[in-house]
Amino acid sequence: MHEFDLIRQIDSFTTAHEDVKVGIGDDAAVTSSSAHKDMISCVDTICEGVHFKRSTLHLSDIGYKALAVNLSDIAAMGGTPRYYLVSLSISEDWKQEEILEIYRGMNDLANRYDVLLIGGDTVSAQNGLVISVTVLGEIEKNCSLLRSAACEGDIVFASGTLGDSRGGLELLLSQGLTGEEHALVGVHQRPEPQLTLGQLLKESGFRIALNDISDGLSSEIWELAEASNVCICLEEKNIPVSEDAIKLFGKQTAYEYALTGGEDFQLVGTVAKAHWPTIQSTAQEKGIRLSAIGSVEQEGASQVLMQKNGERTRIKRAGYRHE
Amino acid sequence: MHEFDLIRQIDSFTTAHEDVKVGIGDDAAVTSSSAHKDMISCVDTICEGVHFKRSTLHLSDIGYKALAVNLSDIAAMGGTPRYYLVSLSISEDWKQEEILEIYRGMNDLANRYDVLLIGGDTVSAQNGLVISVTVLGEIEKNCSLLRSAACEGDIVFASGTLGDSRGGLELLLSQGLTGEEHALVGVHQRPEPQLTLGQLLKESGFRIALNDISDGLSSEIWELAEASNVCICLEEKNIPVSEDAIKLFGKQTAYEYALTGGEDFQLVGTVAKAHWPTIQSTAQEKGIRLSAIGSVEQEGASQVLMQKNGERTRIKRAGYRHE
Repeated sequence: MHEFDLIRQIDSFTTAHEDVKVGIGDDAAVTSSSAHKDMISCVDTICEGVHFKRSTLHLSDIGYKALAVNLSDIAAMGGTPRYYLVSLSISEDWKQEEILEIYRGMNDLANRYDVLLIGGDTVSAQNGLVISVTVLGEIEKNCSLLRSAACEGDIVFASGTLGDSRGGLELLLSQGLTGEEHALVGVHQRPEPQLTLGQLLKESGFRIALNDISDGLSSEIWELAEASNVCICLEEKNIPVSEDAIKLFGKQTAYEYALTGGEDFQLVGTVAKAHWPTIQSTAQEKGIRLSAIGSVEQEGASQVLMQKNGERTRIKRAGYRHE
Repeated sequence: MHEFDLIRQIDSFTTAHEDVKVGIGDDAAVTSSSAHKDMISCVDTICEGVHFKRSTLHLSDIGYKALAVNLSDIAAMGGTPRYYLVSLSISEDWKQEEILEIYRGMNDLANRYDVLLIGGDTVSAQNGLVISVTVLGEIEKNCSLLRSAACEGDIVFASGTLGDSRGGLELLLSQGLTGEEHALVGVHQRPEPQLTLGQLLKESGFRIALNDISDGLSSEIWELAEASNVCICLEEKNIPVSEDAIKLFGKQTAYEYALTGGEDFQLVGTVAKAHWPTIQSTAQEKGIRLSAIGSVEQEGASQVLMQKNGERTRIKRAGYRHE
């Protein structure tokens, strides 16, 4: 069962309403909240044994990451996060101090972006830890950056370097927590949600399509292509991979991690070619690396191609599948 | 480990902010959302094997109940629910049709109160089902009904009859799903969130303290006494228990279920003695039973007493503990 099939089915339960501007199917929901503002809301859940193991994340990292996943969704809308609510389901043998350590990790990240904890629910479960975080944010009315905004002729861009989180995970799986972790491990354990970039893109006033990279570039670019109903062609050599990843895993694996690795929480988007230089230099001034990785070639046909050495192949949608 | 101890610890992570009117510690959070409205938000989670068994709830009931728990929290603030977001964590062997059946149960209830599904996340977990629902609602600015509003001299009231859900659960545990269920089973499987009553109490304009009864009357009345820092005395014979419950389980057990049974999702509150008759008759006009069950006797000393045959005893805080 694929999540996107299910989402389509669940979508049949949604009702059109003038106050719901974006429902299920983008990074977050957008609803009208006042004359000047829209509300952005999203929920994401991570499960022990599926999304993380306690051998690869400290307790505080689990909390950090559960919040980061959601802040990344808000970033992908161009919004500002305001509040968060937490639901923890844990087995009875967890100690209070351990639970608080998870909250500390969330708190570390929340404080940096002025996001306020307003609600929490802790329930006992039979097995493992499930942590579900809801984030509520805001954005100026009608300014959300949607996946569906890509147009023919746009430049496709990505932020940062991709695949590093997966590289960090591989190091953790082979070496465990050593106490002196490689920089890539830090990317895996405490990814930085790209809120500054999302807001900067929103403030540009340009038409921008945007998605966050939670499941690997190939999966996310497909979502964008489908939501916009366009054909996107990526140029492999322009996909930003880190020197660390190439050095540790070789070039081929580094690109594979970028495409299917997941949990980078960088942003991928499109903007009209004419505005690309402005976007890139504005980001650069803030110390954010943006790379042009492809272009939107044709409207009316959702697909994604990869160009390598002048040859084009259709790339698969599959992103990282948590095991 | 008691949840209220943990809540106090977690509360140390919250930061005072003018936009947060009610944070952790009431039924739901209240935040400022526009010049005229406040936003109400809450999250609640139910876990297979802890909060329900598949032998006592149909799949659609699980969905219904996961949403009902949250609508009850909104009701306890006097608010109007607007949107909901769902996080489902399920093992991989669940079929799409089974998941949709859970959504159908939510949809049944959501449609009746015009609550719109705006977001969902489905993740695979190792064991069992965990369903976490976030509800976002609204209320006129500064009109939320808080647990902390009880004053000396108030009448304590409760809605409906209490203990029926526990009675229904006992029937289910002894008989299983027979296909021709007793009315009490219906109360357990599809409890009615008291949104109409909550809004009616809010519209009265009276000062009203309010809490929903999710964990049994004794636990909820303690929360109210502690939040308001008052001594409350209940009169046992005035606690509303159903004839069905008395007939099936005997009088003593029926009162025990009312006090500690949990999951009734009725409301308990206090209002100034002078306004009680108005409140009671307004509710009655809407077909809602309100009973005066005690009084607020003294400020400055959180405790709850029970009067029975003229004798008073201190009642324990303990509510229903899910097993």
